[in-house]
Amino acid sequence: MSTFGTLFKVTTYGESHCESVGCIVDGCPPGLPLTNELIQPQLTRRRPGQSSLTTPRNEADAVKIQSGTEHGVTLGTPIALRVLNLDQRPHDYSETDLYPRPSHADWTYLLKYGLKASSGGGRSSARETIGRVAAGTIAEQYLKRCFGTEIIAFVSSAGRVEMPQLADGADASLMKLLDEITREEVDQHITRCPDPTTAQEMQKLIEATRDAKDSIGGTVMCVIRSPPPGLGEPCFDKLEAKLAHAMLSIPATKGFEIGSGFQGAKMLGSQHNDLWVAKEGGGLGTATNYSGVFKVVFPMGSPFISA
Amino acid sequence: MSTFGTLFKVTTYGESHCESVGCIVDGCPPGLPLTNELIQPQLTRRRPGQSSLTTPRNEADAVKIQSGTEHGVTLGTPIALRVLNLDQRPHDYSETDLYPRPSHADWTYLLKYGLKASSGGGRSSARETIGRVAAGTIAEQYLKRCFGTEIIAFVSSAGRVEMPQLADGADASLMKLLDEITREEVDQHITRCPDPTTAQEMQKLIEATRDAKDSIGGTVMCVIRSPPPGLGEPCFDKLEAKLAHAMLSIPATKGFEIGSGFQGAKMLGSQHNDLWVAKEGGGLGTATNYSGVFKVVFPMGSPFISA
Amino acid sequence: MSTFGTLFKVTTYGESHCESVGCIVDGCPPGLPLTNELIQPQLTRRRPGQSSLTTPRNEADAVKIQSGTEHGVTLGTPIALRVLNLDQRPHDYSETDLYPRPSHADWTYLLKYGLKASSGGGRSSARETIGRVAAGTIAEQYLKRCFGTEIIAFVSSAGRVEMPQLADGADASLMKLLDEITREEVDQHITRCPDPTTAQEMQKLIEATRDAKDSIGGTVMCVIRSPPPGLGEPCFDKLEAKLAHAMLSIPATKGFEIGSGFQGAKMLGSQHNDLWVAKEGGGLGTATNYSGVFKVVFPMGSPFISA
Amino acid sequence: MSTFGTLFKVTTYGESHCESVGCIVDGCPPGLPLTNELIQPQLTRRRPGQSSLTTPRNEADAVKIQSGTEHGVTLGTPIALRVLNLDQRPHDYSETDLYPRPSHADWTYLLKYGLKASSGGGRSSARETIGRVAAGTIAEQYLKRCFGTEIIAFVSSAGRVEMPQLADGADASLMKLLDEITREEVDQHITRCPDPTTAQEMQKLIEATRDAKDSIGGTVMCVIRSPPPGLGEPCFDKLEAKLAHAMLSIPATKGFEIGSGFQGAKMLGSQHNDLWVAKEGGGLGTATNYSGVFKVVFPMGSPFISA
Repeated sequence: MSTFGTLFKVTTYGESHCESVGCIVDGCPPGLPLTNELIQPQLTRRRPGQSSLTTPRNEADAVKIQSGTEHGVTLGTPIALRVLNLDQRPHDYSETDLYPRPSHADWTYLLKYGLKASSGGGRSSARETIGRVAAGTIAEQYLKRCFGTEIIAFVSSAGRVEMPQLADGADASLMKLLDEITREEVDQHITRCPDPTTAQEMQKLIEATRDAKDSIGGTVMCVIRSPPPGLGEPCFDKLEAKLAHAMLSIPATKGFEIGSGFQGAKMLGSQHNDLWVAKEGGGLGTATNYSGVFKVVFPMGSPFISA
Repeated sequence: MSTFGTLFKVTTYGESHCESVGCIVDGCPPGLPLTNELIQPQLTRRRPGQSSLTTPRNEADAVKIQSGTEHGVTLGTPIALRVLNLDQRPHDYSETDLYPRPSHADWTYLLKYGLKASSGGGRSSARETIGRVAAGTIAEQYLKRCFGTEIIAFVSSAGRVEMPQLADGADASLMKLLDEITREEVDQHITRCPDPTTAQEMQKLIEATRDAKDSIGGTVMCVIRSPPPGLGEPCFDKLEAKLAHAMLSIPATKGFEIGSGFQGAKMLGSQHNDLWVAKEGGGLGTATNYSGVFKVVFPMGSPFISA
Repeated sequence: MSTFGTLFKVTTYGESHCESVGCIVDGCPPGLPLTNELIQPQLTRRRPGQSSLTTPRNEADAVKIQSGTEHGVTLGTPIALRVLNLDQRPHDYSETDLYPRPSHADWTYLLKYGLKASSGGGRSSARETIGRVAAGTIAEQYLKRCFGTEIIAFVSSAGRVEMPQLADGADASLMKLLDEITREEVDQHITRCPDPTTAQEMQKLIEATRDAKDSIGGTVMCVIRSPPPGLGEPCFDKLEAKLAHAMLSIPATKGFEIGSGFQGAKMLGSQHNDLWVAKEGGGLGTATNYSGVFKVVFPMGSPFISA
Repeated sequence: MSTFGTLFKVTTYGESHCESVGCIVDGCPPGLPLTNELIQPQLTRRRPGQSSLTTPRNEADAVKIQSGTEHGVTLGTPIALRVLNLDQRPHDYSETDLYPRPSHADWTYLLKYGLKASSGGGRSSARETIGRVAAGTIAEQYLKRCFGTEIIAFVSSAGRVEMPQLADGADASLMKLLDEITREEVDQHITRCPDPTTAQEMQKLIEATRDAKDSIGGTVMCVIRSPPPGLGEPCFDKLEAKLAHAMLSIPATKGFEIGSGFQGAKMLGSQHNDLWVAKEGGGLGTATNYSGVFKVVFPMGSPFISA
């Protein structure tokens, strides 16, 4: 369905070319600063057409809060967010629509529903993620203010071009990068890869692929610093299980790793165990972080976002 | 929490050394044949201590249906399943319990709950999976009878020893294996690896690791043949998202892939697209299966199941 | 929270004076005819200010479908419905807002959230029901088309003025009314009481109460004809339990009855049992309908909707 | 379904004559004292056959905690509770089973499931409430320890015999009774009516009805003193809505009232508004309690519990 979460509950709506897309966020605590201006930057980052690298549609995606705030502060009531679809072209894709596109959801929708939106991917369109991104900015505000949580994602590979730090999952230079990287650094290059040399190679690859009228896969890595301790629930709702659920629900994703990931399957327990050490300033820390308990790192396969 | 699913809803209970472990399965349709004897084989397959390779505890794990069936048939009402903990040793692990074990949930439980079960992993013990396996046998019965669905999982790698078919995710020999493999073939070798040569190498590696008082990671691959068409829901509850959620909720898993997985991130769209072809006997099929839409294949990193 | 339902899931949003109010309806089957024009009449019926009897605010409440339909037919995807708040007066109630109003949610909101919307009832405003009514029209369309279900509600009492048919819950004239009443008949009088004599008395009472700057309670009765058989689930989600949940969640309701209701508590089992009889045309029916199994009748206390 | 609640989640199982009945309670905080002995008294109070007034089956209903506690204290993990069905008589009701009983769920089960338990009411049997009562004792322990909450229910009417205090919902003597009544006082008479004169009349009525091989309805009243402030959620999950849901899910209930209930529908707003007053010792209180915000009183129609 289109609802995710228990206490902080997000429900999204919208097809690629209907009146508007957006979401309702229920369960956000009261008293949190929230304005259109605080949400907009992430929606602007999300939208394609910002560079010569990706789909050339220019979508403004201006968000407008419908409810749940007053005087720039949340009320504790449902927050409805709405982004007008400026580009309502119900017949734009009509020619391609005679045939189900390969590796898209078209055929599955037809089997399941007996019909599908006449243009674009309908609900399986990447425009559905507008609601998610908007909701995510609210969650991020809350986590940052209450726990100092920082969440930074970046492109770690495109095709066979990958950051050198990925060669060994436990490389010290990767750990340093994950400790220090900022969103501003990520945004410095249009590929959103923070390693300058790799970023340039990625750009060349993507441009060549685009010129050949093809597309190419890639991976995204994300670090979550200072998450609330004890987040997640035992058994079915472990933090990594909910993260995997969320990530694999993004269109076109094919894989998810946390901590050591698939590399970990090749290690001995004696290597992989994160030994307990006294932290500077007191408390318990770990010498390594293969489990990803305190630092979540998920390189996520996201192939074939069309270039 | 300990509940998973919406219409077929599974709730598990039980720590490593309490009175009993088990589950309630709500939402199973009426009229399905179900007896203790139909469930037991999977619980017996699950339990450790069956070979010299793994933990030498011998656990009988005899299941007894408490409710929801009559005359060997389900009533459509909640099915409670119960397995007595023969091995109730509340103080058995007490010495190790002075310290939180590395890469275990002990420390997180202490932070979150202020206390933890005095022995073993409590709720994070692998014994919690007894309830899942028991519930899974009911789901499997239902899917098999109503849709002819077959679900076969096997060990595809241990440490750096892996099946040769994994070298390239789209290898024809792997596809053939996935099309034909049976659970009986998987069970022929104690490692549950269906490739005899690899199985022998795995056995050697695991025995050597055990003799060195160490443990080793591995991966599991699973094929689901003839799933019900249209299973899963758009957006948040896609089939791959729910599978990833379920798999990452198993203790010690670190990764999940579906279809081409992380290999797919290195491919061009023109290679990866599963082209539509006419199937023998009519209907639409795909020339390749990188998307994993009709055949789910997930090699799952499951490191450090102690040997 | 603001979400109700499992498979047909309704999430509402909006305070009394924010940008817009509305809902997302997820789980509506595809192929159902749905346009703004099909929804509007129920929203127009809902809104106060239509007669001299009630709050003189004139609210247009024009609904606009945001997503989930194409060419006048549902797609099976979330249907977002939006009604602009023409009357955005964030400071209109400010004087009364110095004090929590008696028997309103103001004080509870302050205790629970630490703040509340600066005007009107915020989320506890009856304007929240716009989203419910809009969602209800979709559910009604579906039930009518697929099962021929008819749902008719009417005002059965105001203060001590009540329809004579209510004197005995099993009166033949009441049963006849419930079998035959139409929504058109209900709408013929501004009180929405279908008994002309009672309606006139109600009107006099309400006008006199209004002139005395007071308000008066009342009850609503509803009949559901031809519901889908087997609707509801055993144990916690019985049909009557879900109906009671929904009705008591409407602001200011104080009670709920089904079938014989509180009258039934005074009856003998031998009187109350609905004996099985052969129905004309075959099948099994009941001689009486005290249980309300096949005909749901709920007089609902809804005191103090301000006149 | 058989699950109720979000954070404190109760799942029940069991038919009238299967191996055992019980429940899993998930979400109970850790550190709460809990033993079989603390739960048993409420199960013993629940069971019929304790007096000459009701069904003469003697059911021991001894509860045994399966999981979730250690050393008499909860662990924060799921608490499974189990009561053996000593009386497993799968064919005991067989003769009556040839026909669906009037005003029972038999026929609905047959329509919905195509089969039903061969004896008794199966899942619609009042034995299902064993799981609810057991779960309720845990919730009660928690509320009592953390908030000083007291919950007292009693029989307020049987047939037309009712406590004189019910004649007017706002009677001072009723308010006093609700402020002071204890469970011990309720249990002093086998009818569980705390008014001695009424209790004797009830007993006579019930005995006479039983001798005539008939049954009689009744109402139950409940007072909740010192509930946690702000319990419940705006809109769909208001406290009264969840209470109504829970109460109408008990077999054979036909109605629910809170605060002034149906009497309130006859009152003027000026009479019914609970005016704010300064409480002794500081804080805000109300002069009356028609809304039932701080004191929940629900006379619940529960006709035809067979005598």
